[in-house]
Amino acid sequence: MSTVVVRNPPRAAEADVKALAVFGVATVHEAQGRTGLLAPRLRPIYPSVHIAGTAVTVSVPPGDNWMLHVAVEQCRDGDVLVVAPTTRSDAGYFGELLATALAARGVRGLVIDAGCRDVAELTAMGFPVWSRCVSAFGTVKETLGSVNVPVACAGQLVAPGDVVVADDDGVVVVPRADAAAVAAAAAAREEKEAVSRERYRRGELSLDTQDMRERLAAKGLQYVESTIR
Amino acid sequence: MSTVVVRNPPRAAEADVKALAVFGVATVHEAQGRTGLLAPRLRPIYPSVHIAGTAVTVSVPPGDNWMLHVAVEQCRDGDVLVVAPTTRSDAGYFGELLATALAARGVRGLVIDAGCRDVAELTAMGFPVWSRCVSAFGTVKETLGSVNVPVACAGQLVAPGDVVVADDDGVVVVPRADAAAVAAAAAAREEKEAVSRERYRRGELSLDTQDMRERLAAKGLQYVESTIR
Amino acid sequence: MSTVVVRNPPRAAEADVKALAVFGVATVHEAQGRTGLLAPRLRPIYPSVHIAGTAVTVSVPPGDNWMLHVAVEQCRDGDVLVVAPTTRSDAGYFGELLATALAARGVRGLVIDAGCRDVAELTAMGFPVWSRCVSAFGTVKETLGSVNVPVACAGQLVAPGDVVVADDDGVVVVPRADAAAVAAAAAAREEKEAVSRERYRRGELSLDTQDMRERLAAKGLQYVESTIR
Amino acid sequence: MSTVVVRNPPRAAEADVKALAVFGVATVHEAQGRTGLLAPRLRPIYPSVHIAGTAVTVSVPPGDNWMLHVAVEQCRDGDVLVVAPTTRSDAGYFGELLATALAARGVRGLVIDAGCRDVAELTAMGFPVWSRCVSAFGTVKETLGSVNVPVACAGQLVAPGDVVVADDDGVVVVPRADAAAVAAAAAAREEKEAVSRERYRRGELSLDTQDMRERLAAKGLQYVESTIR
Amino acid sequence: MSTVVVRNPPRAAEADVKALAVFGVATVHEAQGRTGLLAPRLRPIYPSVHIAGTAVTVSVPPGDNWMLHVAVEQCRDGDVLVVAPTTRSDAGYFGELLATALAARGVRGLVIDAGCRDVAELTAMGFPVWSRCVSAFGTVKETLGSVNVPVACAGQLVAPGDVVVADDDGVVVVPRADAAAVAAAAAAREEKEAVSRERYRRGELSLDTQDMRERLAAKGLQYVESTIR
Amino acid sequence: MSTVVVRNPPRAAEADVKALAVFGVATVHEAQGRTGLLAPRLRPIYPSVHIAGTAVTVSVPPGDNWMLHVAVEQCRDGDVLVVAPTTRSDAGYFGELLATALAARGVRGLVIDAGCRDVAELTAMGFPVWSRCVSAFGTVKETLGSVNVPVACAGQLVAPGDVVVADDDGVVVVPRADAAAVAAAAAAREEKEAVSRERYRRGELSLDTQDMRERLAAKGLQYVESTIR
Repeated sequence: MSTVVVRNPPRAAEADVKALAVFGVATVHEAQGRTGLLAPRLRPIYPSVHIAGTAVTVSVPPGDNWMLHVAVEQCRDGDVLVVAPTTRSDAGYFGELLATALAARGVRGLVIDAGCRDVAELTAMGFPVWSRCVSAFGTVKETLGSVNVPVACAGQLVAPGDVVVADDDGVVVVPRADAAAVAAAAAAREEKEAVSRERYRRGELSLDTQDMRERLAAKGLQYVESTIR
Repeated sequence: MSTVVVRNPPRAAEADVKALAVFGVATVHEAQGRTGLLAPRLRPIYPSVHIAGTAVTVSVPPGDNWMLHVAVEQCRDGDVLVVAPTTRSDAGYFGELLATALAARGVRGLVIDAGCRDVAELTAMGFPVWSRCVSAFGTVKETLGSVNVPVACAGQLVAPGDVVVADDDGVVVVPRADAAAVAAAAAAREEKEAVSRERYRRGELSLDTQDMRERLAAKGLQYVESTIR
Repeated sequence: MSTVVVRNPPRAAEADVKALAVFGVATVHEAQGRTGLLAPRLRPIYPSVHIAGTAVTVSVPPGDNWMLHVAVEQCRDGDVLVVAPTTRSDAGYFGELLATALAARGVRGLVIDAGCRDVAELTAMGFPVWSRCVSAFGTVKETLGSVNVPVACAGQLVAPGDVVVADDDGVVVVPRADAAAVAAAAAAREEKEAVSRERYRRGELSLDTQDMRERLAAKGLQYVESTIR
Repeated sequence: MSTVVVRNPPRAAEADVKALAVFGVATVHEAQGRTGLLAPRLRPIYPSVHIAGTAVTVSVPPGDNWMLHVAVEQCRDGDVLVVAPTTRSDAGYFGELLATALAARGVRGLVIDAGCRDVAELTAMGFPVWSRCVSAFGTVKETLGSVNVPVACAGQLVAPGDVVVADDDGVVVVPRADAAAVAAAAAAREEKEAVSRERYRRGELSLDTQDMRERLAAKGLQYVESTIR
Repeated sequence: MSTVVVRNPPRAAEADVKALAVFGVATVHEAQGRTGLLAPRLRPIYPSVHIAGTAVTVSVPPGDNWMLHVAVEQCRDGDVLVVAPTTRSDAGYFGELLATALAARGVRGLVIDAGCRDVAELTAMGFPVWSRCVSAFGTVKETLGSVNVPVACAGQLVAPGDVVVADDDGVVVVPRADAAAVAAAAAAREEKEAVSRERYRRGELSLDTQDMRERLAAKGLQYVESTIR
Repeated sequence: MSTVVVRNPPRAAEADVKALAVFGVATVHEAQGRTGLLAPRLRPIYPSVHIAGTAVTVSVPPGDNWMLHVAVEQCRDGDVLVVAPTTRSDAGYFGELLATALAARGVRGLVIDAGCRDVAELTAMGFPVWSRCVSAFGTVKETLGSVNVPVACAGQLVAPGDVVVADDDGVVVVPRADAAAVAAAAAAREEKEAVSRERYRRGELSLDTQDMRERLAAKGLQYVESTIR
């Protein structure tokens, strides 16, 4: 029931973050069993971005960004701020002033299931944001929330210290404890995909390279010639 | 990364559930500091319902209800099933057959951030469901998920054993550890509201009964007579 | 730029409100040239309702219902409260306590482009509400707005004193100055429709009763027999 | 490219419609391989409805209901009117006058991926409508469309003469040629479900009655005791 | 009821595709009587694209992309893949591996009423996609669908072999039989527009060049001088 | 009830428009007390735009752009066209022909709560548009609306002659009478923000520079060390 700021939660190991940072969101998501993907309503405010870092989580009331100011102090180099309102809000919680403060602390980006503003300035600064909308609507500073508690953000549970990977495809969260294993699984997946890509490029079919024909037939797939003239 | 069924998680105390059950969703939500309310897209399939129970949580793939069958076995008398898909799905995961199975175990209702079907039959049975849509679209049974792990359902974190209260206003979750305190706060709130209600009924204004006028003036509120004719 | 409460704006004449009150929303909307209909996202919280009254308008910040408390004092017998947030909000601005206060002053209902809660209690009281959602999410009392200024509510301009008609089909606003003329036009329309209804009941076709065939042919409509077997 | 009214398309056999009419939408949808279900945004305007009939299809421009007047003449006893706008429209294409005309011809209901109005009157008449919204917004009569051509309605292809089944769960379309086979498959499904229902009522688990345990284990499902205290 | 892959449906004539390829989506859509435009929720994943080709259609279950693998084999040089899920799905059915396979066969792009992923890679490859969302959510390969059957995709009926034109404005489908006529009508329209464009550039008004004033007056349009000071 | 074109409404003073033009949307919106921001669903069709001008308002029926042709004549150098449909419409009311006509009169851009088409051509021309969607769907010219009357556009009241400022963050409207004062307040705000920005860049915290700590503590904010290992 109380609002709280949790200091110094454990973060995923730097090495694990680095290991995950080389993979795209789709690969990471697949590597952990098709879990952890935040809802596709979160879009980057500018294209060609790719970050990985450790989550500092913020639970905020609708239309109130006070806790973002509180959260800045809890951020370290390599973090990603993850902000979840307690109910839907289209307000613009975040702009270039807060980005300046976060950038000064080495924060790599923001993930917010609400609005963001100053997108021209943020683009110029190179501070990436994934948000549900672009909105200049101003926020107040009246009501408390919490920092570094587990939050439900855009349909996924994010705990402080979890790894966040974000790129043009969206945002995925990897639980801290799973980071190393997911990175390994992602590497394995990429190797396999490289082989497939090369075969497809030469014109081979996944029906053959992945032996799908028999299973399709077993499920009852039928081929017929078109009778339309 | 693994899929798992957690057996016998601790549930909120029966006494706490009972204490919360007498309050509406709005009161419980306010009593815990305006937190815990699931998104308003979840609506009851029929009106005039009010339940409270302990959460059995299910994380499900989109369009696949296999884990609901797995979850039935983990339910006990007094539980409420809480189902969260890993990405948006409008499929109809749940109908009267599963409701029959749950009712046989004493489950009090279903909360699902996806579709529900057989609403006429469920209404006739008196098995309440809060869902994001009514949808007859069928599901498959191919992919695993998890039971009794913390889930992000309709914007809120729900842990197994938490108290779920649901009525015509929606659904609120109370963390197991907070249940007794929230029930006490809800009772205090209701008493206060009863006084207000009576004063309002007599024509008194909240501006006066809650001493708002001075603070409004301090904020700069101005009163003017209309100049429109 | 300032927040303001406008006292005693002129209201549409009682006789005009009464004249409009006998017509449904669809008829009134058609009678004024297919204008004034609020967006269909506003739905009544319970069925079989039909009201007409004079608008007291409220512009509110997102998630803040303080101005509703201010607005109560400005309401008179026969009014309808019309509430428009300055940006989208799904919060539950209104419940049975405020309804009790409004009912004590003779207010006939609420139209709000945001959330409403306590729907079971409001239904029991018979206090009708048209809202964009049912939501128990609580609001704060921190930021000012305005009362009895023109507002944009659910896609329509509503001025204080305008006539609001609302039923199961939605909500329509009639500018104060047009109220008498719209009522007259609505009456004429109903008479015409009564004739059509009777003819349709007997099996006549609008193609004939409204002489559509020639104009359809002129536009190029073609009739062909089906060639499918 | 031309607009056209197709007269006398073949309808599904009366016997097949009757055979399908005893099943709910969910059963019919499952029986034809989880296809044919219209999007869940189509909702009945009042509860406790269940119809089956043959489709008369109408392709309409946005905000223009002229072709509905044209379509009335093409309807026969036992038909269901299915209306698809060429782009999204929230206008109220249909009200009690058109319903009176359709009822006079024995039409059983309307399915429309747009708005409907006069819901109180339609409810009183007992003329069922499934629509994407309730909207009083008026339509014009200026632009042609087509009647009895295949249409894409709420995500499904509907051809004239197809069987439409609609109830509280939504709307499903069965291709004319498949009607008898789907009815047979639906009957088989219902029998199977009756057995399951009885077993579930007695407390048996689908895990056992449907032999799921082995396959779940093969997929890797793990059971663990909760370690939370 | 059965799932089927139709081989070698007739395609629109190469000459007709070429004729249509020089026109934008808006022109083609107007030229065929304002029909055939897919819903505007389908957006290109990168700007400045313009393709035309023949449709290979795929009906897919929600969250299952198996049939895309089946469809690859049915594609030829000059085709465009058109994918419609049987119910709403936000999953990412398509990424750079499938694009590699399609590109190897000369496919010109993808139209999908669901999600797409690997947008950075697809942009780099220059493989255009129009999708309802960008989503990395992974799909399974468990359930059959159909290839080269008529589908309802984003609100329009698309048959195999139809011409698909897509650009920054969206996607339009032209029935195979109408392709030549629509191309001719589009050419006529462009010529007419070139004249208008030049006249507008010189400051002429459409009110004059299109003789609108008289008809506007006849409809009752009134001009008044502003009385606001 | 009548449709009307109002000629020569007073426009905001040129000097005030110039004064506002140097500020972004977020700053202007904040400077007038967090009011006047149009809904974030309005997005620019291409990035890196920033305009300010005086509103010419148009109320249009759904799917009918006739009044845009009427409005062109009422536009002057320095205007911005603001278009509001009377109910939701996704049609493409506006393309490069109308843009050519507006550009010839010195109009600076279009704000429309509906669809826009020809985005490639408009981008090439450098004619900026803020719209709710990109849609090639064609409109008719059959029904009248009004020009230069107050309209409700994307949730805000816009009167003719008001100042419209639009950039990558969205669109804000400033009432004509408030323009000078808002410009002054915006300037003051920017000065203050420049100081904050510099301090944040050096690593100072808003908690300190804005003296938030005491008020946060008074509200009950608690700091705790993480107990997670």
